[in-house]
Amino acid sequence: MSCNFGNNIKITIFGQSHSEAIGVVIDGLPAGFEINMEKIAEFMARRAPGQNSISTPRKEADEFKIISGVVDNITCGAPLCAIIENKNTRSGDYDKLKFIPRPSHSDFAAWAKHEGFNDIRGGGNFSGRMTAPLCFAGAVCMQMLEEKGIKIGAHIASIGKVKDKKFNPVAVDFADVQSKSFPVIDDEKGEMMINTILDAKENADSVGGTIECAIVGMPVGIGDPIFDGIENRISSAVFGIPAIKGIEFGSGFGGSELFGSENNDDFICENGDIRTVTNNHGGILGGISSGMPIVFRVAVKPTPSIGKKQQSVNVESLEKEELVIGGRHDPCIVPRAVPCIEAAAAVVIADFILK
Amino acid sequence: MSCNFGNNIKITIFGQSHSEAIGVVIDGLPAGFEINMEKIAEFMARRAPGQNSISTPRKEADEFKIISGVVDNITCGAPLCAIIENKNTRSGDYDKLKFIPRPSHSDFAAWAKHEGFNDIRGGGNFSGRMTAPLCFAGAVCMQMLEEKGIKIGAHIASIGKVKDKKFNPVAVDFADVQSKSFPVIDDEKGEMMINTILDAKENADSVGGTIECAIVGMPVGIGDPIFDGIENRISSAVFGIPAIKGIEFGSGFGGSELFGSENNDDFICENGDIRTVTNNHGGILGGISSGMPIVFRVAVKPTPSIGKKQQSVNVESLEKEELVIGGRHDPCIVPRAVPCIEAAAAVVIADFILK
Amino acid sequence: MSCNFGNNIKITIFGQSHSEAIGVVIDGLPAGFEINMEKIAEFMARRAPGQNSISTPRKEADEFKIISGVVDNITCGAPLCAIIENKNTRSGDYDKLKFIPRPSHSDFAAWAKHEGFNDIRGGGNFSGRMTAPLCFAGAVCMQMLEEKGIKIGAHIASIGKVKDKKFNPVAVDFADVQSKSFPVIDDEKGEMMINTILDAKENADSVGGTIECAIVGMPVGIGDPIFDGIENRISSAVFGIPAIKGIEFGSGFGGSELFGSENNDDFICENGDIRTVTNNHGGILGGISSGMPIVFRVAVKPTPSIGKKQQSVNVESLEKEELVIGGRHDPCIVPRAVPCIEAAAAVVIADFILK
Amino acid sequence: MSCNFGNNIKITIFGQSHSEAIGVVIDGLPAGFEINMEKIAEFMARRAPGQNSISTPRKEADEFKIISGVVDNITCGAPLCAIIENKNTRSGDYDKLKFIPRPSHSDFAAWAKHEGFNDIRGGGNFSGRMTAPLCFAGAVCMQMLEEKGIKIGAHIASIGKVKDKKFNPVAVDFADVQSKSFPVIDDEKGEMMINTILDAKENADSVGGTIECAIVGMPVGIGDPIFDGIENRISSAVFGIPAIKGIEFGSGFGGSELFGSENNDDFICENGDIRTVTNNHGGILGGISSGMPIVFRVAVKPTPSIGKKQQSVNVESLEKEELVIGGRHDPCIVPRAVPCIEAAAAVVIADFILK
Repeated sequence: MSCNFGNNIKITIFGQSHSEAIGVVIDGLPAGFEINMEKIAEFMARRAPGQNSISTPRKEADEFKIISGVVDNITCGAPLCAIIENKNTRSGDYDKLKFIPRPSHSDFAAWAKHEGFNDIRGGGNFSGRMTAPLCFAGAVCMQMLEEKGIKIGAHIASIGKVKDKKFNPVAVDFADVQSKSFPVIDDEKGEMMINTILDAKENADSVGGTIECAIVGMPVGIGDPIFDGIENRISSAVFGIPAIKGIEFGSGFGGSELFGSENNDDFICENGDIRTVTNNHGGILGGISSGMPIVFRVAVKPTPSIGKKQQSVNVESLEKEELVIGGRHDPCIVPRAVPCIEAAAAVVIADFILK
Repeated sequence: MSCNFGNNIKITIFGQSHSEAIGVVIDGLPAGFEINMEKIAEFMARRAPGQNSISTPRKEADEFKIISGVVDNITCGAPLCAIIENKNTRSGDYDKLKFIPRPSHSDFAAWAKHEGFNDIRGGGNFSGRMTAPLCFAGAVCMQMLEEKGIKIGAHIASIGKVKDKKFNPVAVDFADVQSKSFPVIDDEKGEMMINTILDAKENADSVGGTIECAIVGMPVGIGDPIFDGIENRISSAVFGIPAIKGIEFGSGFGGSELFGSENNDDFICENGDIRTVTNNHGGILGGISSGMPIVFRVAVKPTPSIGKKQQSVNVESLEKEELVIGGRHDPCIVPRAVPCIEAAAAVVIADFILK
Repeated sequence: MSCNFGNNIKITIFGQSHSEAIGVVIDGLPAGFEINMEKIAEFMARRAPGQNSISTPRKEADEFKIISGVVDNITCGAPLCAIIENKNTRSGDYDKLKFIPRPSHSDFAAWAKHEGFNDIRGGGNFSGRMTAPLCFAGAVCMQMLEEKGIKIGAHIASIGKVKDKKFNPVAVDFADVQSKSFPVIDDEKGEMMINTILDAKENADSVGGTIECAIVGMPVGIGDPIFDGIENRISSAVFGIPAIKGIEFGSGFGGSELFGSENNDDFICENGDIRTVTNNHGGILGGISSGMPIVFRVAVKPTPSIGKKQQSVNVESLEKEELVIGGRHDPCIVPRAVPCIEAAAAVVIADFILK
Repeated sequence: MSCNFGNNIKITIFGQSHSEAIGVVIDGLPAGFEINMEKIAEFMARRAPGQNSISTPRKEADEFKIISGVVDNITCGAPLCAIIENKNTRSGDYDKLKFIPRPSHSDFAAWAKHEGFNDIRGGGNFSGRMTAPLCFAGAVCMQMLEEKGIKIGAHIASIGKVKDKKFNPVAVDFADVQSKSFPVIDDEKGEMMINTILDAKENADSVGGTIECAIVGMPVGIGDPIFDGIENRISSAVFGIPAIKGIEFGSGFGGSELFGSENNDDFICENGDIRTVTNNHGGILGGISSGMPIVFRVAVKPTPSIGKKQQSVNVESLEKEELVIGGRHDPCIVPRAVPCIEAAAAVVIADFILK
């Protein structure tokens, strides 16, 4: 099982790419909060497909319908359920894939797990489409967190080998990055990234990248050591987003190459607040928030759906097959994954904070 | 809360560095399994301190005592509890630290969370010492997994900037790496690493590194998409080990720089088995095992305890303090973290497999 | 939070009496099972309101729509979500109740918990209507359990002081009881019960009763001692049904008046099977199934909605109020609760069995 | 699995009747609370065996040792682990029982579940002895709850057919009942009960009874509807105590015989507080506390260990066996179960309250 997340704010995600609808149940939200539906829609639009030349031509407005949990848009303490209908499905595209797993997709693993009964259409509930309900849940949590002074933002940190600037980890400035159609800090690097994606697209190929996310305004002392630290929980949520293959907090893998004297973050007192001079610890010490911005980066693999010829095997006949994937796909999933990472972070922090 | 992990095999870790004892309860183990106590002791010795010039001089045999769950060393279906007494404690070393948090340690976060009531002695239950019961649990799980043909092994992948060879991800060969006192594949690189650690030690400094871990013999189809995938669960357990700040599966962050045509893993059929030609997916597709070796790497930060002068703040007076950490510490925690990573992996895989 | 149940088969119930829809997500169902939709509908019809003179005139077909988790009615391993639209709602009936809690309803407690933001219409998600999605989930589980030879059935054991015969606990015979519109073993007693209900109705009153449920075909050895025994789990699910105020297993409260020599169940061997001569233990020993029928009884309180004058308090003004409840209500909820109890039992047993 | 309970205060119970020790881990306790160890010992003494002529002659002081989670008896935020050594064990008594299950004990079910590897000595971890760590956990929770004005108390409500007075459910007065060696309200009835127990003992028999428990000082609005109501949680904990076979809240089974107009509890306002005139709802409406005393009763079966001849079957040979149980047993477990019920209630309420 896999569709549940959270202890205090419990989210339950359901649906398949081509089922009648997908959706999410959010349990544990405090009653009396008026949800700003427009802001939810704006947030979800950042993830929605079909926006431009670098994303899949599958157009899907991702209109959500709240079917429980609110009275006049105000939470009433009952579990909030929102559904998003699947309208623009073309299941015929997938028929031939039933027995020929696409390389680096979940097809083979899902086929083995469910003995051939998995829903192959559009990737079933392994589809990136399942991040739409996650984004809905994240958008709701984000609104509640903002009331408590906590903000979450992410940007594309790299596409292929082209790297954006990083957030300043001791004083994160989101500026207008989240409102950009291609969310980078350095727009020149953004141009180069877009070109990298378009090149990949032209070559019937795809490309990966990384995303950096920050959470600012965290109170000190949230989280737990050992198994319920902020790192455990964020990583646990973030790997729920298809194509994520790595995560690092603070100085992360880079920090592993340093000496303690380089990586340690001295404490100082500023205006009566204890904070650190640097932030290699990424805002988390012993699993618990230090009050500094929480900063993490994730690795996104190149979209496995590519138009180039690939080698596969028919799972029934065990015969060799050559595969060229048609259909409508993103040459790079990174831009659309940016709000998903924010949403995953929001769900985790809400689970810690909104008791 | 934080001391529980697992759904089918539930482990509960308790204790503080200087409490009377530390320990673990393992619930859900199948009855009728004879535990090889010598092998457990051997495994735990790999983590134990005081073994050589590159680890802390605190000597602690980590002798465990099983107080429930077995009859004549055979599991009886009741929760298995093992405790390890804390013998060689020198709490006096920590008195002065009560109000002066050590940079990049959990002290400040723990103080804030528990309003000053946290056990500061030896890091309390934030201590690396809490990995001893984890190793016990992992060692038990590993024995049960080995009966099912699943083996888990890790090696030091880097210390500072010195890198070991990697496992061959399509045909992992553990060889004798786990029995080495300094577990690397390439012993020449191992020498360079040891020198890096000794240099750090001489400079009253510390150094970080990375660990690579592989799980071989996994059946296909284990795990779940979204929130209960193997990546979610392994990362969730691994961040329970102090000092871990990053994790990547398969090609990970490196894969994020590639094109899909480079990163995708073609399927082939060999001797009636479907497998992949390459293993950039690290044995996990859609959260589910593909049958290929599961391969992941973790980033370990440099030990925060260093003998150099550091800046801190008295949490009560808010006055600036200079800190030189005495006591007994590892200049590099990576070697002793190797079995801990294996143990975390074992606990996760057991939770998936031993139903 | 409260809408989740189960470890292996996880159900998540959402909705309010007058929200757009109510529904359930069932996660963990094995893939490849063809659901018989007609049988589900038949089962749910047993709970549906408006069937006869002894139930509420609110007519609601309880038509469910499955929006995920199946392909051509066959489970595909993805979470199954079914929703039931709320059509026949008359929210106006409830406006005046917002600040005047109905005696023995959840209104006051819900108002206090949610600081007045609870959805008062129809009882919100405290409504008996929330048992419709429970029945859906139970009906699905029941079909899967029947394939494994496990059958679940319940009957009205009493209405007011009129008592039905009991199941023979060592050889439960469901006969045609479940297909009766008034499910009792002894139809004469059934007549008397119906009259008791009609009398209550005529008096603008309501009446309580008890339900007896049996689970037959249980394999030996299912369940766990201490906190995950069958009794813990069944009671935990059954108290999720509004109006349930007591539960007893086997000889239950009656058994507490006996001597051990009267209450103990001797073992015998019959046709190679070990079984007990009597079944005062209700099929559960040490939390674990003994292989004998699991038998339990629940107490259902009289419907709190009555047409008689009652005393209440305005929660805002704290002034005394007299209350006569109009609207459409069941004079006795017991008959419609019968399938709910079966459903709760099915969900629990499926959680234990369908791993 | 079965040894875990709770969401916010998580308790993990381990041990077997004759293992080296039994114990409990309590995670989630707020830091900074000074535990009164004497009061814990006093509480546990109420459960301890060997106190008088009506309990088992097995003498066991139930001395606990806290091995983690406190510094100078003050909670430090780390999981608190306490162990109780098993000293007075006479395992030889049980050897012959390995293959001959005692009627109405867990032996047969445990043997089936664990394929013969269960620890038969003293009932293993199915033993009533496992309530000692539960009592420890309950005693700690109770101290913390008392600081918040919540008190929990229970008394013997009946032994066999002899009934004690009931608590006044609208104004529970614990008086000195908990400090009595035979905790009843009406000591004359207490005498009759003791005689009933002594009679049973003389006849090599045993007898059952009921316990009534009340929780006073509960704030309004605690709990949740559907699956996390107070009834769900209390019943779920209480059935973790061996020999409990039934539970009812408020008017319970008796209320099921009433009309709504008799069972409903009118609201009134007294000194600015809204309360109910009667308390047939037992302090719980819609799963949530109403602010009235929570009142419940449990049914305790007669101790299954009796000295009379009983019929059993050898599980290996399937041959008929006659069994006379020797060893040291309580003719009536009810008196010693009283503090266990209080402890179970305390653990549940702490889980709801001490976030």
